[in-house]
Amino acid sequence: MLAKAAVLSAFQSPLEIREFPLNDDLAPGEALARVEMAGICGTDVHLWKGELPIPIPVILGHESAGRIAKLGPVLDRDWQGQPLAVGDRVVWASSIVCGECYYCRIKRTPTRCLKRKAYGISYCCDEAPHLRGGYSQWILLRAGSSIFRLPDEVSFESIVGAGCALNTALQGVERIGVEMGDTVVVQGAGPVGLAALAVARESGASRVIVVGGPAHRLRMALEFGADGVVDLAEHTTPAARLSAVRALVGEHGADVVLECVGHPSAVPEGFELCRDGGKYLVLGQYANAGNVEFNPHVITRKHLTVMGSWAFEPRHVQGAIDFLARSEKWRRLFEKQVTHRFTLDQAELALTTVRNLEAGKAVILPWSGTI
Amino acid sequence: MLAKAAVLSAFQSPLEIREFPLNDDLAPGEALARVEMAGICGTDVHLWKGELPIPIPVILGHESAGRIAKLGPVLDRDWQGQPLAVGDRVVWASSIVCGECYYCRIKRTPTRCLKRKAYGISYCCDEAPHLRGGYSQWILLRAGSSIFRLPDEVSFESIVGAGCALNTALQGVERIGVEMGDTVVVQGAGPVGLAALAVARESGASRVIVVGGPAHRLRMALEFGADGVVDLAEHTTPAARLSAVRALVGEHGADVVLECVGHPSAVPEGFELCRDGGKYLVLGQYANAGNVEFNPHVITRKHLTVMGSWAFEPRHVQGAIDFLARSEKWRRLFEKQVTHRFTLDQAELALTTVRNLEAGKAVILPWSGTI
Amino acid sequence: MLAKAAVLSAFQSPLEIREFPLNDDLAPGEALARVEMAGICGTDVHLWKGELPIPIPVILGHESAGRIAKLGPVLDRDWQGQPLAVGDRVVWASSIVCGECYYCRIKRTPTRCLKRKAYGISYCCDEAPHLRGGYSQWILLRAGSSIFRLPDEVSFESIVGAGCALNTALQGVERIGVEMGDTVVVQGAGPVGLAALAVARESGASRVIVVGGPAHRLRMALEFGADGVVDLAEHTTPAARLSAVRALVGEHGADVVLECVGHPSAVPEGFELCRDGGKYLVLGQYANAGNVEFNPHVITRKHLTVMGSWAFEPRHVQGAIDFLARSEKWRRLFEKQVTHRFTLDQAELALTTVRNLEAGKAVILPWSGTI
Amino acid sequence: MLAKAAVLSAFQSPLEIREFPLNDDLAPGEALARVEMAGICGTDVHLWKGELPIPIPVILGHESAGRIAKLGPVLDRDWQGQPLAVGDRVVWASSIVCGECYYCRIKRTPTRCLKRKAYGISYCCDEAPHLRGGYSQWILLRAGSSIFRLPDEVSFESIVGAGCALNTALQGVERIGVEMGDTVVVQGAGPVGLAALAVARESGASRVIVVGGPAHRLRMALEFGADGVVDLAEHTTPAARLSAVRALVGEHGADVVLECVGHPSAVPEGFELCRDGGKYLVLGQYANAGNVEFNPHVITRKHLTVMGSWAFEPRHVQGAIDFLARSEKWRRLFEKQVTHRFTLDQAELALTTVRNLEAGKAVILPWSGTI
Repeated sequence: MLAKAAVLSAFQSPLEIREFPLNDDLAPGEALARVEMAGICGTDVHLWKGELPIPIPVILGHESAGRIAKLGPVLDRDWQGQPLAVGDRVVWASSIVCGECYYCRIKRTPTRCLKRKAYGISYCCDEAPHLRGGYSQWILLRAGSSIFRLPDEVSFESIVGAGCALNTALQGVERIGVEMGDTVVVQGAGPVGLAALAVARESGASRVIVVGGPAHRLRMALEFGADGVVDLAEHTTPAARLSAVRALVGEHGADVVLECVGHPSAVPEGFELCRDGGKYLVLGQYANAGNVEFNPHVITRKHLTVMGSWAFEPRHVQGAIDFLARSEKWRRLFEKQVTHRFTLDQAELALTTVRNLEAGKAVILPWSGTI
Repeated sequence: MLAKAAVLSAFQSPLEIREFPLNDDLAPGEALARVEMAGICGTDVHLWKGELPIPIPVILGHESAGRIAKLGPVLDRDWQGQPLAVGDRVVWASSIVCGECYYCRIKRTPTRCLKRKAYGISYCCDEAPHLRGGYSQWILLRAGSSIFRLPDEVSFESIVGAGCALNTALQGVERIGVEMGDTVVVQGAGPVGLAALAVARESGASRVIVVGGPAHRLRMALEFGADGVVDLAEHTTPAARLSAVRALVGEHGADVVLECVGHPSAVPEGFELCRDGGKYLVLGQYANAGNVEFNPHVITRKHLTVMGSWAFEPRHVQGAIDFLARSEKWRRLFEKQVTHRFTLDQAELALTTVRNLEAGKAVILPWSGTI
Repeated sequence: MLAKAAVLSAFQSPLEIREFPLNDDLAPGEALARVEMAGICGTDVHLWKGELPIPIPVILGHESAGRIAKLGPVLDRDWQGQPLAVGDRVVWASSIVCGECYYCRIKRTPTRCLKRKAYGISYCCDEAPHLRGGYSQWILLRAGSSIFRLPDEVSFESIVGAGCALNTALQGVERIGVEMGDTVVVQGAGPVGLAALAVARESGASRVIVVGGPAHRLRMALEFGADGVVDLAEHTTPAARLSAVRALVGEHGADVVLECVGHPSAVPEGFELCRDGGKYLVLGQYANAGNVEFNPHVITRKHLTVMGSWAFEPRHVQGAIDFLARSEKWRRLFEKQVTHRFTLDQAELALTTVRNLEAGKAVILPWSGTI
Repeated sequence: MLAKAAVLSAFQSPLEIREFPLNDDLAPGEALARVEMAGICGTDVHLWKGELPIPIPVILGHESAGRIAKLGPVLDRDWQGQPLAVGDRVVWASSIVCGECYYCRIKRTPTRCLKRKAYGISYCCDEAPHLRGGYSQWILLRAGSSIFRLPDEVSFESIVGAGCALNTALQGVERIGVEMGDTVVVQGAGPVGLAALAVARESGASRVIVVGGPAHRLRMALEFGADGVVDLAEHTTPAARLSAVRALVGEHGADVVLECVGHPSAVPEGFELCRDGGKYLVLGQYANAGNVEFNPHVITRKHLTVMGSWAFEPRHVQGAIDFLARSEKWRRLFEKQVTHRFTLDQAELALTTVRNLEAGKAVILPWSGTI
């Protein structure tokens, strides 16, 4: 039996469609899942461009959902302890950590595990068992994977529409802290920005303002409940944006600013958007996009708290599922994010759509177009 | 009656010695203190150079100690509620805040009070009652000043030797948090660096390493209990210092790094000295010393917590007095910091000595040399 | 000119209606307010019964609202710094603290100020200027009072309907912390219970269950957004209630339990409602209602965090106004709490109604029935 | 080959000395350790009395140290990642948690793991492999045990002298938080009390007062650095002790009180020892010693924070080793705690000595007296 997958074989080059042998002789704790939907993350575009050091060839795809096709010996519970069976609709955490290293054990910072590996990123697909990415009909989940059974009400569209952005936003906002009544500015209207908006909203923020673009994403931000937006196309300088933000949150600036942009220049600009004594989350700088000038005196003078947040833990995936499960509103909004659907053969077109900021969320349906 | 004081009349120019009329007809809550010792803070050098926007002419001096000469009506208790009387040895918080503004009241960040004024910094001495700075024989303390009676065991040398550096370090370390067992790196061996070292030590740090210079200050750091020092003269690149620090605190870096340098380049260098998930305090960037390049991806990837800390509250002055009162060791070490003593007429020489990093702590004895 | 007021002259005895001279010659910082609505707090019933040590005779009433009738010299801003003028609709914090004592200054626990005095509680009305309580046509606010101008959208009904319960709940929940996704149990369906429910809801709780009674108050709890209620009349033992709560929040118990009952027995019962590692707020034990047996081993074994919370600070009054100002839903719900309206002459009937748990919120309209 | 062990076969009855077959055919991850020293914990006395539900017969002993005799396949690193070899001096965490249950995974409260098992407590020694307790010549450590290689400077006496009390105190103080300058009262002068004193001291407490007895233990407390002691024999009522404590820490009470007594009455007494807004740790109520009367109004009125703390995690064992490793003073003091040494045959005498509060620390040397 063969499994079809989209493979990144060379950076900045066309993806290849390849077929891999599918070995379903599972070891204890392993699982085989049929991938029903694979989200295209902005990080996939960075990987495609070669901006992060990863092994190639690789089957991309780290935010996928599917159904359990087979369970290895002893594996009969999901991450939460719920019974797990063939046919169950599931997602899985993209990463596995060692649980034993300096960061896992001693410093309790597992997302910085020294041996962390992620589906769709860290596994060369030339090596058996090959199927370690989401742009594929099948994925083989290692023993120790965190697998989550989806509640009936949480559709594949809503969980993949939320994507790893929601998991990331949950850890980020948990770290920096949004308290009831806080004014919040979100820099960036991409998937992470919208997810951060959603989480801030549910944490009791009194006002949430989104600074970003383009216009169609700011419209989404308003649908997601933003109290106001500041359009980069209209407010073209940091000073103009600072002024526009202050008009919306008060003359001293926001209590909390969540950076979800990725461009280094967002960070010094964002420091100024905080009130003195305010908090700033550097959430969007997942890829290394280089240096920027800043004045560290601003951090002292404004008495700021600045935090980075790297990735997420399995409990944040559970948090994302719970977030969707308890709110029809958020399910619907994240489902609507899925604006573009592609077949596996169109994986490259899917990446291009994301790169060009045309989509809400683009997804691959690995079994679409097959007979 | 006339009071003699050293006045900054023009930036980057010689100080003037002037005499001001001394009006001891005090309003309710006011106090007149005879200044016995005035510390020269590194900030005074920045003010002298004109690097901060202040009114001139000004009597410098914001870390002084003296004796109560007269108390205005109703003033009979110090900040803690202890009886206050003529002749008592006292210090006073350099700043008064309004208690009513957005930062004082609503956001509880009083050091960012919109109307904060500081002795030795914010008062033009052409305006009556003139005597609002420490480089003077007398100082008139406004109603609402935080005055602290010194315990007998706390000498003027120890409290002025600790200076505003210890107050500043107490708020800074309180904010960032040093927990028992933490490894700590202090960047900078000036007064703030040594005070931060002292506070980290007393907070239970398992190892404290000081990165700085020159050699005579690193020797002081070792006397203050540093477990190791990294000499800038010996380790001349950030990479060399990173390597030296890791050899002393472990290959992953320090749990907490306290920046007490003031040069912008210390900050991006310091981020690298932290372990992933570590904490970084930007304490030394009190003056605006301009921009530096940094990579914000580092904050995200290393999952850092970065905090600024501006000045201190009256309770940190009390904290400093308590710190000294409960430890003969720290009193002796901070007393030894006072290496240079000057008369009022030598105020400019005192500033020069500090500018040239020649002193532990330079102080003015306003009544010395007078008959 | 005379001011009419309802006076508690002897515990457990009828209130008296008395008239006091109204001196409107205000000192600096003082204000005279015409009381438009005075809430009857459950604490007033305790005071009436003599369960707290207060001076009598006293004009009760510590949760009132009205209009500025006259402002003393220099008073022209409200607590937030907004302009304040005759005719403005206002509320005021019931307490004034000294700002200078051990608790105010050194330990930053101002609600435990050693010299705290509260309108409607701490002032003997035999002493001039007499008018220091809310069951009165006029109230004289001392210099240093925290006065808050009400936004147009916040009606007297909504702010008095919320009463000091909302202020209290805001500090309580701030202390114990309710995080997004937490399951919460509120013990008690009185004004504090409903306010705590509202605050927990807005803080992102995933489920909020109310344990209490009687039935009409549980219906209110459901209107306030409770996900479920446990009726004391139906579940008559602690074991039955534990069982009912677990059926609603999960077998291990709730993440956070907020005690808003006042009866000592609620506390040991509530410990059991927490999951291990959970949090428990003792908010309802404002009056001293005596002892109860408990097993402290439960606190250790369940690894609990338990907090008390005393009263509230002025910033929580501002928080309550903001809470109402930003939500039409909550304004409407708290307005609906005002189910019973009385004249000043009926003050005792108002107290009786509250004592008998008949009202949502009972209020006195001090000018009603007058010509 | 046979292993000799002391077995609790019936509650409140003499221990039996039995011999068990020693199977050294280890599965992957398992280890065989030769027990060199086994501490007698106060909890062992409670177990002996039958006050906790445990399976019998059981080999007691949960705070032992020894040498690696054999390592199963794949086990070649200790908990910290250091190489582990036959002959290494080691300790091991008494508990193993499942890592997968509601408390381990979702609520991150692993000491409340639903499947937690502890050496010397939870294993019936009739079942193979029998050797799961410390009162034995050999112990078989399960795969997944947390094993810690001891640094050369940390003697068996110091680590067993500190015992599980130091681990427990480290988690407890971590939870409640002792900040630099805090005044601290420790209730109880037993092993947990002395350990809590040590941890508070190293956390920067300005004063630590111990309330307890008998006299020989209060002398130890003074050697451990207590600033003062309150002897139960001298101050025989709660009111007298409150008065004595206030004379030592100030009239308002202590910032932090650490309960390390075990008797329920200590808890309501201890609430009163806290200043308003203070913190109280319920650390000593590990066994269920029944009910006590208390007034929950005290928690509200005093605005307290009260925490329980259950057991400890492996990282606290590492913390204890580090605590000893970095201080010759503390090593020496904890070594001196070991005042009584027994052979295996004398295990019951050892328990009796502890029950009678005669010892600092009593230990069993399982190979002593053998040839």
